[in-house]
Amino acid sequence: MEKILDRINSPNDLKSLTYSQLVVLAGELRDEIIAAVSENGGHLASNLGAVELTIAACRALDLPKDKLIWDVGHQSYAYKLLTGRKLDNLRKMDGICGFCAPWESEYDFTVSGHSSASLSAAIGEVMANEINGKKHKVCAVIGDGALTGGMAMEAINHIGHLDKPVLIILNDNEMSITKNVGGISRTLSKARSGLGYRRVKYRVENVLKNFPGAYSATRFVKEHIKYAVTTAGALFESMGVTYLGPVNGHDIGEMENIFKRALSMDEPVLVHVVTQKGRGYSYAEKAPEKYHGVGSFDVRAGVTEKDAKDYSAVFGETVCALAAEEPRLAVITPSMTLGSGLTEFSRKYKDRFFDVGIAEGHAVTFGGGLAAGGALPVISVYSSFLQRAYDNVIHDLAIADLHAVLAIDRAGLVPGDGSTHQGVFDVAFLSAIPNVAVLAPSCFDELRKMLIYAVKEHDGPIAVRYPRGGESRSFDNGKFVLGKAKVIKSGADLTVAAYGSMTARAVGCAEALEKIGISAEVIDLRTVKPIDTATVSKSATKTGRLVFMEEVVRCGGIGEQLITNLRLRNRDIKVKLITLPDAFVPHATLPELEDYYGFTVEKLTQTVSEWIKDNG
Amino acid sequence: MEKILDRINSPNDLKSLTYSQLVVLAGELRDEIIAAVSENGGHLASNLGAVELTIAACRALDLPKDKLIWDVGHQSYAYKLLTGRKLDNLRKMDGICGFCAPWESEYDFTVSGHSSASLSAAIGEVMANEINGKKHKVCAVIGDGALTGGMAMEAINHIGHLDKPVLIILNDNEMSITKNVGGISRTLSKARSGLGYRRVKYRVENVLKNFPGAYSATRFVKEHIKYAVTTAGALFESMGVTYLGPVNGHDIGEMENIFKRALSMDEPVLVHVVTQKGRGYSYAEKAPEKYHGVGSFDVRAGVTEKDAKDYSAVFGETVCALAAEEPRLAVITPSMTLGSGLTEFSRKYKDRFFDVGIAEGHAVTFGGGLAAGGALPVISVYSSFLQRAYDNVIHDLAIADLHAVLAIDRAGLVPGDGSTHQGVFDVAFLSAIPNVAVLAPSCFDELRKMLIYAVKEHDGPIAVRYPRGGESRSFDNGKFVLGKAKVIKSGADLTVAAYGSMTARAVGCAEALEKIGISAEVIDLRTVKPIDTATVSKSATKTGRLVFMEEVVRCGGIGEQLITNLRLRNRDIKVKLITLPDAFVPHATLPELEDYYGFTVEKLTQTVSEWIKDNG
Repeated sequence: MEKILDRINSPNDLKSLTYSQLVVLAGELRDEIIAAVSENGGHLASNLGAVELTIAACRALDLPKDKLIWDVGHQSYAYKLLTGRKLDNLRKMDGICGFCAPWESEYDFTVSGHSSASLSAAIGEVMANEINGKKHKVCAVIGDGALTGGMAMEAINHIGHLDKPVLIILNDNEMSITKNVGGISRTLSKARSGLGYRRVKYRVENVLKNFPGAYSATRFVKEHIKYAVTTAGALFESMGVTYLGPVNGHDIGEMENIFKRALSMDEPVLVHVVTQKGRGYSYAEKAPEKYHGVGSFDVRAGVTEKDAKDYSAVFGETVCALAAEEPRLAVITPSMTLGSGLTEFSRKYKDRFFDVGIAEGHAVTFGGGLAAGGALPVISVYSSFLQRAYDNVIHDLAIADLHAVLAIDRAGLVPGDGSTHQGVFDVAFLSAIPNVAVLAPSCFDELRKMLIYAVKEHDGPIAVRYPRGGESRSFDNGKFVLGKAKVIKSGADLTVAAYGSMTARAVGCAEALEKIGISAEVIDLRTVKPIDTATVSKSATKTGRLVFMEEVVRCGGIGEQLITNLRLRNRDIKVKLITLPDAFVPHATLPELEDYYGFTVEKLTQTVSEWIKDNG
Repeated sequence: MEKILDRINSPNDLKSLTYSQLVVLAGELRDEIIAAVSENGGHLASNLGAVELTIAACRALDLPKDKLIWDVGHQSYAYKLLTGRKLDNLRKMDGICGFCAPWESEYDFTVSGHSSASLSAAIGEVMANEINGKKHKVCAVIGDGALTGGMAMEAINHIGHLDKPVLIILNDNEMSITKNVGGISRTLSKARSGLGYRRVKYRVENVLKNFPGAYSATRFVKEHIKYAVTTAGALFESMGVTYLGPVNGHDIGEMENIFKRALSMDEPVLVHVVTQKGRGYSYAEKAPEKYHGVGSFDVRAGVTEKDAKDYSAVFGETVCALAAEEPRLAVITPSMTLGSGLTEFSRKYKDRFFDVGIAEGHAVTFGGGLAAGGALPVISVYSSFLQRAYDNVIHDLAIADLHAVLAIDRAGLVPGDGSTHQGVFDVAFLSAIPNVAVLAPSCFDELRKMLIYAVKEHDGPIAVRYPRGGESRSFDNGKFVLGKAKVIKSGADLTVAAYGSMTARAVGCAEALEKIGISAEVIDLRTVKPIDTATVSKSATKTGRLVFMEEVVRCGGIGEQLITNLRLRNRDIKVKLITLPDAFVPHATLPELEDYYGFTVEKLTQTVSEWIKDNG
C-alpha cells in the first residue's frame, strides 16, 4: 500500500490531510526514524517524541517562507522527512546530517548541534525581518533540557525586552539527555501535572470560542490567564514572554490550534507542550536515556549491552576508585552522566556527584567554587561542549590556579555527529591558557595513570583529554611524569611524534615503514602542555627528520608549537620571537606593562640589537 | 580628627559601632573611594552605590570564616577598605587590584573581573562545605546587570535544585554599565516601585517582630509572602529560590536585619536590595554611566571630556557612516555602548542598534540569526569578553560561514584592569576557527579601511581587532587587501614583522636600529588570518633574519604559525606536519573520517614514505 509519507513533498502538503490521516502519517514517520537509526545509529528517543509536534507546527506555519528553528537538531528527523529528505544514509559521509544544517535544506535555518541556541537565532531572524521589511513568522522549538543553558535565558530576557512576535514551542519531555535537573524543571513539572493543565486548557478553549477577534482574545489571554495558574507561567511572564499551556504534545489538533492562535498574537508567546520521549517504540519509552543516542541495533531486540570497553568506562571506573581514597573528590557533569561513563559514580557517590544540567559555563565555574572551598572537582565534559566554557576555564580556574581536573571526553575526531561535535579545538584553546596542564593518554592504562596523577599529585588546573571509543593498542609507558615524553620505539631515519589516539597509529606507521627499510623512532608526547621539546629535539637532531601527527586543527596545535620551539633552538634563518610570556598579565598602567614586557621602543631595540650581536 | 575607618582592622570591628557611627563611616569610605579613583582611575559609580550594602553584609556575616563573594569586583572597593586594604596605589603595578583577587586577601574568595560568575562560585563553596563537613555561611552579591548573563541563571536554577542555604544579595541599581535592558529588568523595576516595596517591607517587619523563632518565621515568610506581591519574586521562586524584598540599599539597619534573617533560613534566599549608582558624589549620581569606569580626574570639576580620539571613537564614526549606506547593517553590543564608541549610533540608528545586556553568548548567536535572516550584523565586543562567546563564534557563525563582523575592542594589553581584562587570547582562539578572517589595524585609517572592507566586500565571519586608546603613529598602507601584508620600511639586515599596535613600535625599533647601523625591513601583516607567509618569507630569505613581535600569548599566536609556515618551506631539519586541514570536519563514521583525512595506517605510511622519497 502506498504510504501517506510518499505523497508529502513539502510541509504544506500536510494541510490537505485529515486528522486521521495525520495519525497514520505519524506512525509512518516513526517507522522511518526507527529504521534509519537502527541502521546507522543516531538520536532516537528525542526524535520519536517530537513527531506530532512537528506535524502540528508544519501545519500552523507557511514553510519555508516562515522559519521553524530547532534547538539541537536531534529532535528534527521527522522534520527532515517532511521536508523532502530521506534518512537512508543518515550520519554517513555525504548523507543526511544528524542535526540541522542550512547547507542541506532551505528548511534548515541554523546549525543546531549544541543546545540552547535556537531562541537567540529566532529573535535574530525576527529583527532581520524588521530591518528588511519582511513579514514572515518565526518559530523556535526548544526542549526543557536546553532551557537550563544560560543562553536560552539570555535570549528570553532579550525577547521579552524587544517584545516582538516570536513563537517559542517548549518541547517538555522532562528530560534533557538524562532526567532533567534544576529549579526550573521542578516548576515545569508542577505545571504539567493535574489542575493547572486542565484549567488553562479550558480557559484557552473558551477564550478562543468566545472572542474570535485576535485582539480581544489576546487581551483576554493577557489579562486573565497571566500569572494565574502556574509558576511556570510566572517564570516566563516575568521575563516578558506570554505563556500558554501546557498542551498534549501527541494531540496534533490541540497543538495546531494553540500554535495558530499564538502566531496570531503580536507578541512573544511560549507554548508549553508536553511530550513523551521515546514515544511509539516500547524499548525507548521505558528507557529513554538509553535510547537518546545509540549505535546501530536490531529493532526487534532493542539495543543490547556492548561488551567493548571504552575510554569513558575507564574514566568512570577510575574516578570511582579515586573517590574511595579521596573524600574531597567531587564529579560534575553538564547532563552527560551516561555518555561520560558516570552512571556508577552517580549511584555510589550521590553526595559528591553534580549533574548541573546543560550548563557548561556553570559546570566549570561551580567547579572553581568547589576547588576554592577545598573540595577537589573533576569536571567531566565533552571536548566540543567545553568550547562553551572557554572563558570559565580562564577566569574561574586558571587565573587563581585552582586545583581542578577537566576530564575531556570525545577529544579528537568523533564519528557521525559532524562538524559541531568534533573535539578538534581543545588542544589549541587550552594550551594557550597559562597555568593549565594538558595530558593526552595513548591507551586505557595511561588514562588511569594520568587521572591518578591529576587528582593525587598535581596542583592547579589540569585537563586530561581522551577520545570517544576504545584503545587500538596499549603501551607500557611506565610512570607518568608531567612534561616528559617517552620514546616508545627507537629508530634512525626519522622521528615520528604524536600523542593521544594518534600514538597507536604512529607506531603502526613506523612498523610499516620498517618493512620498506625506513627506520622510524616514535615519541609519545603524553603531556601536550607543557611540551617536552628536549626529547623531540634530541631525537630529531639524531634522525634529521621529524614527522608530527595530531588529530586536531593545525592552528594553535602542538605541531606548530613544537616546530616553533625547535626552530627557536636552531640557526639557519635566525629567528627570534617577542611576545607575552605564558603567564597572566597583571593590572598596571599601559606604560608600566610595556616596560614590564619589554615592549617599549627602547627595550625592543636593546633586545634586538643584543640578539643580533649574540647571533652574528 | 581620627577617622572611624582608621579603627577598622577587620570587618568584625564594624559590629561594635552604632548606626550613627556607621553612617559617618559610610561617608569616610566614599571619600576614600572618590580620592583613589580620581587619582588612579577605576570604577566609581558602582562602588559608591554599594557602600551601605557592604557595611550591612559585613555586620551580618562572620568574616573571613563566612564567605562574601562579589560578582564583578568593581563594587568591592568599600569591602577592600574594610578588610585591611588601602586604595593608594589602586590599579598600579603591585598596587591593589581593581577587582577581587584571592592572592591579595583572604577576604577575596574568587577572581571577579567578568560578571555573572558569583552564584556558581557561591554554590560551589556551599557544596564544598557539605563535602568537607564545614558549617560557615556563603553570601554572593550580584548586580541586576549581571543577572542578564546566562550563567547567573544557570546557577540560580542549580541552586534551586540543590536547595541548600546560600544568601544572594541582588544589588539592583537599575543599571548594568548603561541603563539595564531585558524583560527581567522591567520586572525588577515593577517590584521596586510603589506598593510592592512598602507592603513587603511591612510584612517582613511584622513577621520578624511576631515570630522570633527562625522556623516559624521562615514558614510564615514562605507561605505568605511567596508569589504574593511581585513578579520579580515569582521569577526567582519559580527557579526554587525564596525572594525577600525589595529593601532600601542605603539603610544599613534595614538591610542588616533582613540579611540576618535570610541567613537563618535553611534554604536559598535572594534579597532584593535597591541602591543608587554613584550615590554621594553628585556628578556620578547625575550621570552614573559616565562615572562607571573613569580615568583620573579632578574631584571638584568632575570628569571632563577628553579631546584625544581613540580607536573606539573611530569605530563608532565608521559604523555610523556605513549604516547610512548599508540599510541592512545592525550593531549589537553586550552592554558596552559608551565604552565601544556607540553612543551616536545608538541614537541615530535606534532600530538597528541592540544592547542585549551582559550576554556575550547571546550577542553573537543573535548576530548569527540576523545574518541568516539577511541583515548584516556588526557585533561589538571587548576581546576578553568575547572569550565568553567562543563556541558561539564556532557554532553559530563560522560553521555556516555567515557574514557577520566582530568588532573587537580592547585587543592586546589593557591598562589598569589586570589579568581578567587583557585582550591577549583572541588571536589564538579566533585564528584556530575555520572560515574566520582576522584583521588587525595598525592605525585609525587602517581601522576605517578594514571595517569598510569587512562590511562591504567580505563574505563570511570576519573579525577586526583594535586596541584600547589611540594610535601612536599613522601609516598609509594603501588599499586594504585581505591576506596581503605590506612592507612599510625596507632594509637589508633583518626583517621585523608585526601587526596592530605593535607595528608602530616595530617601525620605531627599526628607526632606532638604523642609527646604530642595522638596517631593518618592517612588515605590517594587516591580516593575521590568513597570514601572508609569502611576503614575510621573501623578506626573511633576503635578510636572513626574522624578528616577529606580537602583543598576545605566544601559544597559538601568529608568531608560531608564521614560523611553522616558514619552517615547512625550508629544508635543514626536514619537517612535515600531518594534521586536520583548516576546515570543519563533516559528519561521517570514524573509518570514513580516518580515510578522508589520511589518518589510516596505510595512508599515513604512504604519505610519509612518499615524502621521504621526495625529500631525500
